[in-house]
Amino acid sequence: MNRASILAFWGATACIVAPMAFAAGYADDQSSPIYGVKIPVGYRRWELVAVAHEQGFNELRAVVGNSLSIKAYGEGRLPFPNGAMLVKLAWKHVPLSGAGGAFVSGPATTVQVMVKDSRKYAATGGWGFGRFINGKPVDEAQHKTCFPCHEANVKNHDLVFTRFAP
Amino acid sequence: MNRASILAFWGATACIVAPMAFAAGYADDQSSPIYGVKIPVGYRRWELVAVAHEQGFNELRAVVGNSLSIKAYGEGRLPFPNGAMLVKLAWKHVPLSGAGGAFVSGPATTVQVMVKDSRKYAATGGWGFGRFINGKPVDEAQHKTCFPCHEANVKNHDLVFTRFAP
Repeated sequence: MNRASILAFWGATACIVAPMAFAAGYADDQSSPIYGVKIPVGYRRWELVAVAHEQGFNELRAVVGNSLSIKAYGEGRLPFPNGAMLVKLAWKHVPLSGAGGAFVSGPATTVQVMVKDSRKYAATGGWGFGRFINGKPVDEAQHKTCFPCHEANVKNHDLVFTRFAP
Repeated sequence: MNRASILAFWGATACIVAPMAFAAGYADDQSSPIYGVKIPVGYRRWELVAVAHEQGFNELRAVVGNSLSIKAYGEGRLPFPNGAMLVKLAWKHVPLSGAGGAFVSGPATTVQVMVKDSRKYAATGGWGFGRFINGKPVDEAQHKTCFPCHEANVKNHDLVFTRFAP
């Protein structure tokens, strides 16, 4: 598969699934398959990194980071240090009633987490991934798509798509 | 003027100007005309309230709040207390290179501030307004449009458009 075909899928669907040699299954029902990542406590109060609009999913998104990741962004240094965490919140892109052209964050859709641990996640560029809907991790098949997509697209930015919004 | 015509303008341009009986001029060159509002120190690190997409301006926006406003949102209580502050950050809505359908926060455009002080700003529903580009307040004519637009559209939400994104 080449970069162009991966990118073509990125906006509309999940990234192309690639076979991964990890232990399958859930560590517990709150942890992501493969990686064992959980939704971090208090993430909703973390600092804002940037916002985005995903037309293909009809979603608005915000990425927030814990203090270690915010510090790394502020210093402009890569790779992110161990313990850095990023959470991407997503909501439906909903028109604001009566205000033509304005769209706001509607119902929440997913919460997606990246956790840096260069030893534990050595095989996936140092990052563990978790994708959650209504607080529950989604299935293993979806989690198999995380690393290949990040590696194919943002290898030059420590596998992190998001740039800090000034 | 009726609500429909005000709303029609809202997304595309500034709100309709209404004559205001305030002292004109700048308190100093960092404060907004009419209201004397400044860009609050440390606002970029405040907690996220919600995100938005303004098609008419081709912008992505995030609203952040200080601890008093976040607390008010959390308690679901109106009106916002004195000292509550909200800051709307805005950036150009820029396509993510190579990823069809994904848009990210590009260059910053404006920073807009609301400050609650029910005595100082009694004539404008308890809120003072400031609109800044590159750290400098814009002119008085633009600041005359803030209150009428908020009052016309969100009188039932203490003049605040933004709802908390879960």
